[in-house]
Amino acid sequence: MAKVRIQNFSISVDGFGTGEGQTLEDPFGHAGHRLHDWFFPIGMFGPPGPEGIDLALARFGWDAVGAEIMGRHKFGPQRGPWPDDGWEGWWGDEPPFHTPVFVLTHHPRPSIEKEGGTTFHFLDASPEEALRRAQEAAGEKDVRIGGGVDLVRQFLAADLVDEMHLVIVPLVLGRGERIWDGLEGIESRFRVESVATPSGVVHQMWSRTRD
Amino acid sequence: MAKVRIQNFSISVDGFGTGEGQTLEDPFGHAGHRLHDWFFPIGMFGPPGPEGIDLALARFGWDAVGAEIMGRHKFGPQRGPWPDDGWEGWWGDEPPFHTPVFVLTHHPRPSIEKEGGTTFHFLDASPEEALRRAQEAAGEKDVRIGGGVDLVRQFLAADLVDEMHLVIVPLVLGRGERIWDGLEGIESRFRVESVATPSGVVHQMWSRTRD
Repeated sequence: MAKVRIQNFSISVDGFGTGEGQTLEDPFGHAGHRLHDWFFPIGMFGPPGPEGIDLALARFGWDAVGAEIMGRHKFGPQRGPWPDDGWEGWWGDEPPFHTPVFVLTHHPRPSIEKEGGTTFHFLDASPEEALRRAQEAAGEKDVRIGGGVDLVRQFLAADLVDEMHLVIVPLVLGRGERIWDGLEGIESRFRVESVATPSGVVHQMWSRTRD
Repeated sequence: MAKVRIQNFSISVDGFGTGEGQTLEDPFGHAGHRLHDWFFPIGMFGPPGPEGIDLALARFGWDAVGAEIMGRHKFGPQRGPWPDDGWEGWWGDEPPFHTPVFVLTHHPRPSIEKEGGTTFHFLDASPEEALRRAQEAAGEKDVRIGGGVDLVRQFLAADLVDEMHLVIVPLVLGRGERIWDGLEGIESRFRVESVATPSGVVHQMWSRTRD
């Protein structure tokens, strides 16, 4: 059965999924690339990339995914009504998604079709509603919840997530957006497995238990 | 050379070293025993205890330790001036320390000698001063920084720690005392190794790098 998955979601050891102060130059604010040093580039920005178990787990995040849902801040640094700035995401002409991508925003706008099969759709919708749309688009494939932090928290709080792959990076970020806020006790709904790899990160797989 | 070590320090995945609301019945507040399920009892409260790597790492926490420094809340639930309640710690007649233990408190009181070599001394002192006292007492052995959370944070902030063994437990506690507050960027002073064990926890060893 198709699943709803969070994949390759890096957090600092103090629980921040992104730093403070997102800008065009720093999508993760003061965290810079430090949360994702283990990951880049997985075919996104050229070599070098991860190896071994890091590579296998990272690639799995792109396996059998038929659609993604992302928050607006993953799509771009803008706030409020969309400016007329020609922004079409951080990823250039051929984004790495190759599927429909549903961007949650209070400011809907026309879809953007990119090369390689990625189309960005903009929805002002609840997590449940967005998921219904994404599942329709994904067919028998899975839906990935792409982040940012706030989106991941919303989907976890609504108990819509089947699998969550966290990557705990040994950094103390100190500031930013915390993934766990408001989620006290959610471990009771999951089975958790961890593996540490030589790159220094810990991969943690949270699998929703079903009675 | 003798070291300053934090050992077997359990934190939730959201970074809390203890829960909210310490009481006589619940030394870790609403966390209950959940942060330490992997650990109990290591000769403290009888079987069953951890096995395998969990056991080896837990026991290492008691190896070559010549003195401990603890915060007042690790010693007892009292606040303010000591009441005349006969309190001598949570650990009964023979505490598991078997060394001098220096309890940091703004309310000094006479030392308490227990069976098995544990003596509690009460100091109103800075981390540096307390460490000097503990190192004198420990001789060639190491000094363990025993917690609670606030004490650990103080010693980390003062850069007095050589080794820190954290145990990351897959719980979202949501409330309590966060170990990482005020410590942004301290990973730059440490080399970090992690190992996941079948009990579900991740052991993380932070070793101070020296140029």
